[in-house]
Amino acid sequence: MDLIERFSDRIREVNKEIEGILEIKKPENLYLAARYLPIAGGKRLRPLIAMLSTEVVGGNWRKAIPFSVSLELMHNFTLVHDDIMDRSPIRRGIETVHIKFGEETAIIAGDVLFAKSYESLHNLDIDSESFRRLCFLLTKCIEEICEGQELDMEFEKRDYVSEEEYFDMINRKTAALFSCSAEGGAIIGKGSGEEIGSLSTYGRFFGLAFQIWDDYLDLKGEENEFGKKIGNDIREGKKTLMIIHALSNANDDEKKMILSVLGKKDASDEEVKEVIDILERIGSLDYSRKKAIEFSKRAKQSLSILPDNDAKHYLEELVDYCISRRR
Amino acid sequence: MDLIERFSDRIREVNKEIEGILEIKKPENLYLAARYLPIAGGKRLRPLIAMLSTEVVGGNWRKAIPFSVSLELMHNFTLVHDDIMDRSPIRRGIETVHIKFGEETAIIAGDVLFAKSYESLHNLDIDSESFRRLCFLLTKCIEEICEGQELDMEFEKRDYVSEEEYFDMINRKTAALFSCSAEGGAIIGKGSGEEIGSLSTYGRFFGLAFQIWDDYLDLKGEENEFGKKIGNDIREGKKTLMIIHALSNANDDEKKMILSVLGKKDASDEEVKEVIDILERIGSLDYSRKKAIEFSKRAKQSLSILPDNDAKHYLEELVDYCISRRR
Repeated sequence: MDLIERFSDRIREVNKEIEGILEIKKPENLYLAARYLPIAGGKRLRPLIAMLSTEVVGGNWRKAIPFSVSLELMHNFTLVHDDIMDRSPIRRGIETVHIKFGEETAIIAGDVLFAKSYESLHNLDIDSESFRRLCFLLTKCIEEICEGQELDMEFEKRDYVSEEEYFDMINRKTAALFSCSAEGGAIIGKGSGEEIGSLSTYGRFFGLAFQIWDDYLDLKGEENEFGKKIGNDIREGKKTLMIIHALSNANDDEKKMILSVLGKKDASDEEVKEVIDILERIGSLDYSRKKAIEFSKRAKQSLSILPDNDAKHYLEELVDYCISRRR
Repeated sequence: MDLIERFSDRIREVNKEIEGILEIKKPENLYLAARYLPIAGGKRLRPLIAMLSTEVVGGNWRKAIPFSVSLELMHNFTLVHDDIMDRSPIRRGIETVHIKFGEETAIIAGDVLFAKSYESLHNLDIDSESFRRLCFLLTKCIEEICEGQELDMEFEKRDYVSEEEYFDMINRKTAALFSCSAEGGAIIGKGSGEEIGSLSTYGRFFGLAFQIWDDYLDLKGEENEFGKKIGNDIREGKKTLMIIHALSNANDDEKKMILSVLGKKDASDEEVKEVIDILERIGSLDYSRKKAIEFSKRAKQSLSILPDNDAKHYLEELVDYCISRRR
C-alpha cells in the first residue's frame, strides 16, 4: 500500500476540518476563492509530518489535527500569493485562484487563508503556554517563507547565484515549514527539549531534500494526468541547484546555450530539451539527485535519539517516499 | 495643543518599536518595502485607542505598546494590499509600495507586515491566557477586514447598494479594527467583562463614524500639502453613504448625471464638481455628516459605565477630534 494511502483516515479528518473552517459564508465569492485550492487536494504532507511527530514522542496524533490544518492553510496561502507573483495559470491541474477569481480577490483570499491558519490554532486542546509557543513558531516560520519567496524572485533576475545562496533560499522557502510542522507536532506531543530539537532538524533536512527533488522532477519527472509541462522552471528562469551546478561546470558554448533559454517564457520544447541534455551530460542532474539523497539521509539520522516506534519508521519512510516519487 | 500632539511621547515609543521590529535585514529589498509605509507616518490612531483603553480601566498604557504595534502593522498590511487592488499610486503623499517596489514585492511586504503584527504580540508582558485571547481577537478582526475589502470591491461593480449593506461593509472594513484596538487595550488593562464590552462597542461606533467622515472628507475636505485630489472615491465608483443617499433621493436627470460620472476613472474635475453639487443640493452631504455625528455620539455614550478619569475624557475627545478634522 502507498504510504500516503495508509494514512488516508488521518488525512480525511484533516480535510474535514479544513472544509469546516473554510465554510462558505458572506461574502461568498471571497470564501469560494479561499476554499478553492485547499479543497482541490494536495498530499497533506505537512499535516502528516506534524501528526507523526506528535506520535513519535508519545502523543496522540488527533491532538495535532488543528495544528495540521494551520500548516496546510498556511502552505496554501503561500501558493495562492506565489502563483499571482509567478503569473502561474495552473496548479494541481486546475486554474490558479487569480485566474479563476481575479487577482484582487486572490490577494484577499490568500490573506483569509493566512488568518484562518491562526484561527485553527485556537482549536488546539493544549495549555496556554504551549499555545503561545506554537503561535510564535508559526509566525517566525511565515516570515522565513516570505524571505525565501523574495530571494527566489530576486534570483530569477540575476545571472549568477551561488550554491550557498540557493540552499539559504530553499531553507527559508520550503524547509522552514517542514521544520515548523515537525517541531510543532513534537511540542503538542509534549516531547522533551532534545526530541523537539531533533524533529526540528529532521524537518529542515527533509525540506531541503524535498525542494531539490521537486526541482529535479520539474526536469525529469513524468508528465502527469493534467499534462503538467516539463521544464517550467527553466522558462521561468529559476536558479535551481542543477542550473547553478551547470553554470559552474559547462564550457562556454554550453553556458551560452543555457543562458539563452533560461527565463525565456516562450522557449520551445526543443530548446528546453537541449538545456536538459546539457545538464544531463555534465552531471548536473546526477549532482542534484545525490544532494537530495544526502539531505534525506541526514533527515533520517536526526531521528536517531527518538524512541524506536512505528511513528519513527513512518517518518523515515515518508522521507524516502518523497525522494523517490516520480511526479 | 492638538490632541494627537499631546500624546507625541506615546506615539514616539510606538514608532520606536515599529522601527525595531521592522529592522532591515536580508533580503533587504523585502524589508525596505515592508518598512516603507509604516515608517512614513500616519496618525497612529489605533495605537492611541488601545493605550487609552488600557489606561481607562486602570492599566498602564506602556503595557499596551506591543499590541499597539500589532494594530498599526495590521492596519498597514491592509493598506499595502488594498492599494494594489485599488491600483492607487499615492498614499500619505508618497508612492504606494507596489509602485515603488513592484507588485510582487508589495504582496510579500504586506504578508511580512501581517506576520510581524503577530510577532509583536509576543512582546506583550501578559499571562498566557490573555495572550491567547488577544491573539484570537486579532485573528477574527483580520477576517472581518478581508470580508469588508471584498464587499467594498464588489459594491464598486454594482449599481445599487443599500444603506444597510454599506454599514455592514464599513463595519467590517474599518470598525472591526477600531473595536479590536479598544477591546484589546481593555483586556491588557485587565478591565472587567462589562468594561471590555463597552470599549468594544465604543470602537465599533467610533469606526463607523470615522469611515463616514473619511468618505465625506474625500468630497468636502481641504486639499492637503501633498495635493490629494478631491473626489477620488467618485472616480473609483465607491458606494459611499452620500452616493447611496443621493441615488435614492435624486430625480431622474440627477441620477443619470451621477451614474455617468461614478466609476469614470478619467472624469474631469468639472464633472466631479457637478456630482458634488448635486449631492450638496439634495442633502446627501448633510445626511452623511449627521450620521457620522450620530455614531460618534453613540461611541461616547458607550463609555458611560467606565470610571471618570483622564483617559476616558481623552477617548471622548479623540472621537470629536476625528469627526471634526478637515483632512
